[in-house]
Amino acid sequence: MNGAQALLRSLVDAGVDVCFANPGTSEMHFVAALDDVPQMRAVLTLFEGVASGAADGWARMTGRPAATLLHLGPGLANGIANLHNARRARTPVLNVVGDHATTHKRYDAPLESDVDALAGSVSTWVRRCLTTADLAADAMDALAAAYGPPGGVATLVLPADVSWGQGGRTAPPRRRRRPSLVHPDTVAEVGSALGLGERAVLFVGGDALTERGLLAASRVAAATGVRLLCETFPARLPRGAGLPSVRPLPYPPEPALEALAGTRHLVLAGAREPVAFFAYPGLPGTFVPEGCAVHALAEPGQDATAALEALAELVAPDTAPVVSAPARPALPQGPLTPQALADVLGALLPQDAIVVDEALTSGRSLAQATAGCPRHDWLTLTGGAIGQGLPTAVGAAVACPDRPVIAVQADGSAMYTITALWTCARERLDVTAVICDNRAYAILDAELARVGASGDGARARQLLELHPPDLDFVALAHGQGVPASRARTAEELAEQLARALAEPGPHLIDAVLAG
Amino acid sequence: MNGAQALLRSLVDAGVDVCFANPGTSEMHFVAALDDVPQMRAVLTLFEGVASGAADGWARMTGRPAATLLHLGPGLANGIANLHNARRARTPVLNVVGDHATTHKRYDAPLESDVDALAGSVSTWVRRCLTTADLAADAMDALAAAYGPPGGVATLVLPADVSWGQGGRTAPPRRRRRPSLVHPDTVAEVGSALGLGERAVLFVGGDALTERGLLAASRVAAATGVRLLCETFPARLPRGAGLPSVRPLPYPPEPALEALAGTRHLVLAGAREPVAFFAYPGLPGTFVPEGCAVHALAEPGQDATAALEALAELVAPDTAPVVSAPARPALPQGPLTPQALADVLGALLPQDAIVVDEALTSGRSLAQATAGCPRHDWLTLTGGAIGQGLPTAVGAAVACPDRPVIAVQADGSAMYTITALWTCARERLDVTAVICDNRAYAILDAELARVGASGDGARARQLLELHPPDLDFVALAHGQGVPASRARTAEELAEQLARALAEPGPHLIDAVLAG
Repeated sequence: MNGAQALLRSLVDAGVDVCFANPGTSEMHFVAALDDVPQMRAVLTLFEGVASGAADGWARMTGRPAATLLHLGPGLANGIANLHNARRARTPVLNVVGDHATTHKRYDAPLESDVDALAGSVSTWVRRCLTTADLAADAMDALAAAYGPPGGVATLVLPADVSWGQGGRTAPPRRRRRPSLVHPDTVAEVGSALGLGERAVLFVGGDALTERGLLAASRVAAATGVRLLCETFPARLPRGAGLPSVRPLPYPPEPALEALAGTRHLVLAGAREPVAFFAYPGLPGTFVPEGCAVHALAEPGQDATAALEALAELVAPDTAPVVSAPARPALPQGPLTPQALADVLGALLPQDAIVVDEALTSGRSLAQATAGCPRHDWLTLTGGAIGQGLPTAVGAAVACPDRPVIAVQADGSAMYTITALWTCARERLDVTAVICDNRAYAILDAELARVGASGDGARARQLLELHPPDLDFVALAHGQGVPASRARTAEELAEQLARALAEPGPHLIDAVLAG
Repeated sequence: MNGAQALLRSLVDAGVDVCFANPGTSEMHFVAALDDVPQMRAVLTLFEGVASGAADGWARMTGRPAATLLHLGPGLANGIANLHNARRARTPVLNVVGDHATTHKRYDAPLESDVDALAGSVSTWVRRCLTTADLAADAMDALAAAYGPPGGVATLVLPADVSWGQGGRTAPPRRRRRPSLVHPDTVAEVGSALGLGERAVLFVGGDALTERGLLAASRVAAATGVRLLCETFPARLPRGAGLPSVRPLPYPPEPALEALAGTRHLVLAGAREPVAFFAYPGLPGTFVPEGCAVHALAEPGQDATAALEALAELVAPDTAPVVSAPARPALPQGPLTPQALADVLGALLPQDAIVVDEALTSGRSLAQATAGCPRHDWLTLTGGAIGQGLPTAVGAAVACPDRPVIAVQADGSAMYTITALWTCARERLDVTAVICDNRAYAILDAELARVGASGDGARARQLLELHPPDLDFVALAHGQGVPASRARTAEELAEQLARALAEPGPHLIDAVLAG
């Protein structure tokens, strides 16, 4: 048994049975071993950022890490943007990066680069495996590190000769660590703060965003009057009728500051202290008002859901949660505005849908329009590295073949990882990509307005416009084997979305937004 | 004057008047300053790897660095694969990476990551600029570092508040360092070695690959009998009728070892010692035979062309170089094999063409078929990070608007940076992309065969095949505004290539290769 065979056998025994791969020569023994270990499903991607984003989406839906398979430093680099998003989502990922044989490092061959430095920038754990006999055990350590809690990207650097060497030994999975429990005194302390009658916000995120966690948070809010907000970009948010509708903290600094103005107690449950996405001249970097006490009910790695339930038992023993009633917007008519797009989605969102939201500026109305839809999950761009939506949809669809996946996707961001469509077609994934086609990096328009360009700003504005030439997303989808259509009105979008959702397999709708 | 304005003014004064950009919020003041400094041409790309590859191509053709403009760590990461290729090409690149404001770093905002670690992996020089007053001067230091010699990637990390701060001061360009000259005793030593009558190879690369350098090398070969070989993947190789035809060292290890077998003296001129691209079980990592003396006539950073001319004066004062006679293959007929593709290109290659060669397995016959064509330049994949061809073609076409650029491009590799086509259309670049469409990562077929998969290898082979579904490159080009056609026979390719070369602007030909 060579190293690669031992690795694959141990991985499937440990529950890692999907690998999102973009291999090269140094990974060929790993690839060859796929014929020995048919329990491992290898999903080919045409770009490493699709593989890493898919691993993120897969784990967000299963709670288990998928493996990636990337090719040396440049392949890892191509995967880093979406590994960054996974890091911010605290997603467990087993990031396998092939490298030159140990005997070959000293030759500084053309593909040689500092894999370890690249890996360190996105990983909670990095190890370069040096002997075939230890490979599977190293992988089990990586897996344990990826699980955390909190979850993270564990990068196993895999030299080619460690893969091909004989003497591979399988290794049993490590016992998974449980999240640590919050001390009852911490819960009591938060309960006391909420009992003071001062303006307070309960800010939930991360592991608090479970159905149980949200229901408990809602009970606390109903009983104490604390305002409930969630992270701006949650990794996974369960939503819909029967669940509390939690408002995310706004992205732009002014409304975010306004949302927290006057807060005297900010209780964090699974979320970090809210900070500005970017700095702006004259605006603060943190959204926590001066004089506001910050209470960490549960930090990442702690059981935030259990902490919220304990808090609810303490301060709201007899209070019921406030949940969304079933409700859908009416199907809109006429121009395809962002609001109309949101209403179409709200009118048609199927039961158990997984929505991957990288709509950016076009998505502002989505949350409200879908709050009363049947139960669904919402996955967002956690780390701001655009090009996450389509790959994450790939991973979510591989993870949940029986659930419809809808990627609501900004046009400019779509292009970073547009080859995710090919993997959707190859694997016949039930992904419907709705491209929010406004022919611009619209999010930057507001930023440029803030900055104030000189003169008429024409040369600056060119860098924010995605035309000419117009991108034809229907052609880009057809070029990769995905059926596609173009919607220019609310009615067309509704008709095309209904059809796409009714048919199995991938679809793309180019939603040309009215200006 | 703010920092960004001082930066742009100083850059254009120093000859950096093109910026390949994919900006975000933290770069908005740089973008706004474009309206103040119209001498700076900003070329928008839809993915950072296109920007970095274009900067590489631009500098390979002009000898001057272009600037990039990338967005924080994830944006830099997306650019790293082609920065890696630029590093291996020793291309001067001024790599500008926007980052969070200095006051914002401590908040660990979602897009925060270790930019410096990422930059270090591909750069000869990294500096984080900390004050607005120093920004332009820092940029001039970066530029000097990028020039070298040898050239390299100099990364200037640019915090948003350093850009937006007032008090910017322009800075004059630094005086460029000249390449150092090789000591005459080194030339004499090499001359003596070549005079021993023992089997010798003159291995040229890097800065030796100028017209003058090649002519001198050819004279040395003609006079002494030394065999002339060049690097497998030169950054830029002048070729064609009237110039010596230099055989590149083969890529696969067996023929490379054979090409150097029995060599007693290996003379390096601008090239590094030849090593295997990858390690393989049972094969050596270096291609230098045992007992072979290695003579470094000129190392990277030294004037390799002058050294070759000095050597030619010493050992071949009265010898003329051996140059290619004008010759073209006949236009082939019938099945579109890789040989037929090469012959069509050889038959039609225009004067002063720039060929960007990322054809990989499909390109084996290209060198021979084009050796007698009119004078042209050949740019190759220097660092093995695939997805370099189309971006480098963008940069070469921006650099040389009067020269036709032909990108001979493997299909799988094309997909990593396929959005380069959009920039070709937007900038109306005279790029003809010929996709070598064999529907496979064919280079890996040979590697898998070497490894020997278990069973029938069906599951392994799936990871090397680009179908189903077939990629439709015509649709992918149309989707980005590039006219495109499909060729299935040698005649069709000839007709379509002739037409593409006759029309201005970009074209794509999907050359569907016969099995």
